[in-house]
Amino acid sequence: MDFEAFFKGELEGLHEEGRYRIFADLERQRGNFPRATRYTDNGQQDVTVWCSNDYLGMGQNAEVIAAMKNAIDHCGAGAGGTRNISGTNHYHVLLERELADLHGKESALIFTSGYISNWATLGTLGQKIPGLIIFSDALNHASMIEGIRYSKCERVIWKHNDVKDLEAKLTAADPKAPKLIAFESVYSMDGDIAPIKEICDLADKYGAMTYLDEVHAVGMYGAHGGGIAEREGLMDRLTVIEGTLGKAFGVMGGYITGSTALCDFVRSFASGFIFTTALPPALAAGAVASIRHLKSSQLERFAHQERVRRLRSMLDARGIPHMPNPSHIVPVMVGDAAKCKWISDLLLDNFGIYVQPINYPTVPKKTERLRITPTPVHSDGDMEHLVGALHQLWSRCALARAVA
Amino acid sequence: MDFEAFFKGELEGLHEEGRYRIFADLERQRGNFPRATRYTDNGQQDVTVWCSNDYLGMGQNAEVIAAMKNAIDHCGAGAGGTRNISGTNHYHVLLERELADLHGKESALIFTSGYISNWATLGTLGQKIPGLIIFSDALNHASMIEGIRYSKCERVIWKHNDVKDLEAKLTAADPKAPKLIAFESVYSMDGDIAPIKEICDLADKYGAMTYLDEVHAVGMYGAHGGGIAEREGLMDRLTVIEGTLGKAFGVMGGYITGSTALCDFVRSFASGFIFTTALPPALAAGAVASIRHLKSSQLERFAHQERVRRLRSMLDARGIPHMPNPSHIVPVMVGDAAKCKWISDLLLDNFGIYVQPINYPTVPKKTERLRITPTPVHSDGDMEHLVGALHQLWSRCALARAVA
Ligand SMILES: Cc1ncc(COP(=O)(O)O)c(C=O)c1O
Ligand SMILES: Cc1ncc(COP(=O)(O)O)c(C=O)c1O
Repeated sequence: MDFEAFFKGELEGLHEEGRYRIFADLERQRGNFPRATRYTDNGQQDVTVWCSNDYLGMGQNAEVIAAMKNAIDHCGAGAGGTRNISGTNHYHVLLERELADLHGKESALIFTSGYISNWATLGTLGQKIPGLIIFSDALNHASMIEGIRYSKCERVIWKHNDVKDLEAKLTAADPKAPKLIAFESVYSMDGDIAPIKEICDLADKYGAMTYLDEVHAVGMYGAHGGGIAEREGLMDRLTVIEGTLGKAFGVMGGYITGSTALCDFVRSFASGFIFTTALPPALAAGAVASIRHLKSSQLERFAHQERVRRLRSMLDARGIPHMPNPSHIVPVMVGDAAKCKWISDLLLDNFGIYVQPINYPTVPKKTERLRITPTPVHSDGDMEHLVGALHQLWSRCALARAVA
Repeated sequence: MDFEAFFKGELEGLHEEGRYRIFADLERQRGNFPRATRYTDNGQQDVTVWCSNDYLGMGQNAEVIAAMKNAIDHCGAGAGGTRNISGTNHYHVLLERELADLHGKESALIFTSGYISNWATLGTLGQKIPGLIIFSDALNHASMIEGIRYSKCERVIWKHNDVKDLEAKLTAADPKAPKLIAFESVYSMDGDIAPIKEICDLADKYGAMTYLDEVHAVGMYGAHGGGIAEREGLMDRLTVIEGTLGKAFGVMGGYITGSTALCDFVRSFASGFIFTTALPPALAAGAVASIRHLKSSQLERFAHQERVRRLRSMLDARGIPHMPNPSHIVPVMVGDAAKCKWISDLLLDNFGIYVQPINYPTVPKKTERLRITPTPVHSDGDMEHLVGALHQLWSRCALARAVA
């Protein structure tokens, strides 16, 4: 077989479908975020980033920066080993305590990413608990889907956020089989929020564990940044709360929180936890600083929510259609892959505005969109600039306006 | 089902088999490595780390430290997004160029860890290339095994480092099926080295791709730290060379290098690459500095090899049995799980020497060992102290001596 030809052919297919991805080469400017320097073949350009998941700008928070540099000075660059073989640093221990406390759980366990925390935890539970059935929301993130697939356990997919359908599927399953319900709080692409309480009620009724991915909510919701479950007073009803250190906390890494036995079980059996170099001390130290800051400060959360409301009303004023939802994610709907890419390119090249187009397979065809994430550090001027540019482009490519 | 009772029961089983792991809580001392502070319930203790995979001490290299702190000052803490959605930083681009150059390949692709690079790449190739058969060395790392398992493609396991067996298995397979041979250069637990040339010859003969994990060799072998394949002048014969930034390079992250089409293919299709926050700019910047340093400096490699030879001869002088091998890994054989743990505990508590015991399932039963990794920063005094302590313990627990 001519492997090179095979790879080229597959890539050709992506080009033809308009799905080939080109990464914008950026250099974020600390202290000046959402500004970044974009590198192109023709030189450099200053851009405003409108699609970052550094939702609160914590990636440039002074305490986080200082904590990271301090840890580098004290402990050096990397962890130097897996958690078991010389790689556990005291900052990991502090971080796990901080996370357990954040979610009101006995224990926490950190991973190299949110992806790995989902994949390894669901993979291990599904593989090791005999006969486990995982009930997975239809729009769950790739990392959960891959973890469940990997575990080879029975998987039942229920309609997105639909507790009726979930109950029908729970009723249909063997009452004696152990069960786990896996879902997210804020869904990343539509920004809608799961009915956590109703799902927990069903879990109680059918004796199921609950596994909640709060990746797009931690730091941003709840009085201490514990996520939607904290805001709704439901943290104690979830078996596992999973999160990331790489979005609102501004650093990198992932984690689960839950009972001591559960975390210890995953720690002891999950290949993706055991056989990999631990997070650098500096990342753990930065995350501790970020979590502590957001536990006590409401400023970032209030400013974030205000910015989101403001952007929405500015979009409404110009008739730019965006999907209504109760979260901080503002999906501006285009509904056509080529136009979506075209608008995104023009925003970048002509206006210095960077919003990555979101096309199939990340979202269904005909729901192509610009996924806009306002942060507390986007100014009124930034918003005028963005909405003005969208307004021009909407007219130029004859896109439908929202009807007020 | 009582899930808590299930988890506790499984953990109880680990305790009974002596396989329950307790992580040493350390704080590495930059500038003073291999020294670290160990945190215990009773306070703190100064220890010498003898089992780190920061093989060359690059985790405290001044250029690496400066590059990381500089990147934090310039770009902030995290990447702020996936590679496709605002997370590609200019340091990632530089790092990928540096890695491609290191291994003499057209392209490189970075991942959040070496684990993910193996898992995602083998997983994607096995899943997407119709009918691919992966020929996997029997002692391949967990991350490769999981990647192959995940891909659900046909897998043929050949006897460790045995080219006769590999050829027998290649001959037995459908001549028309696409094939890939996956193996490591330096195997981490025994320190033995694969016959790379012979394997590449077979790959040519049977039209197979080759996938080489150089995780325990990059930075340490070859004139520029390109690994065993560089040392033997074989880099161009391998389809993929995979490595980590978390061991000899002292930071964190993983990568593959290969043709542009292959890297672009994995970039475009691998879930574990696409759906996760990118490496923080500081880690990429630190890795660039480390790789560049080790491309031009031989000092660390020479000192490393000298230290390994010296430790071996000191062990020989005291009759402490260690597995002979052509690499930098010094497995001191104990051959009994309980004694291995006991020695390790005494070394730590009574001598301030930290070497994690390696027991089943990481190595076969009756081959339990202390896996010792001397670095250029272990002094003669450190070695005397280690060998003296082992000598005492060997006598105390009546362990067999090596016969000269
Ligand atoms: C819902 C969800 N879960 C998990 C992840 C993975 O987290 P991380 O980026 O830390 O790997 C993501 C996105 O990256 C996500 O959107
Ligand atoms: C042979 C081998 N490959 C891959 C890995 C994973 O690399 P990383 O620690 O960067 O995840 C390891 C160990 O951690 C290893 O020993």
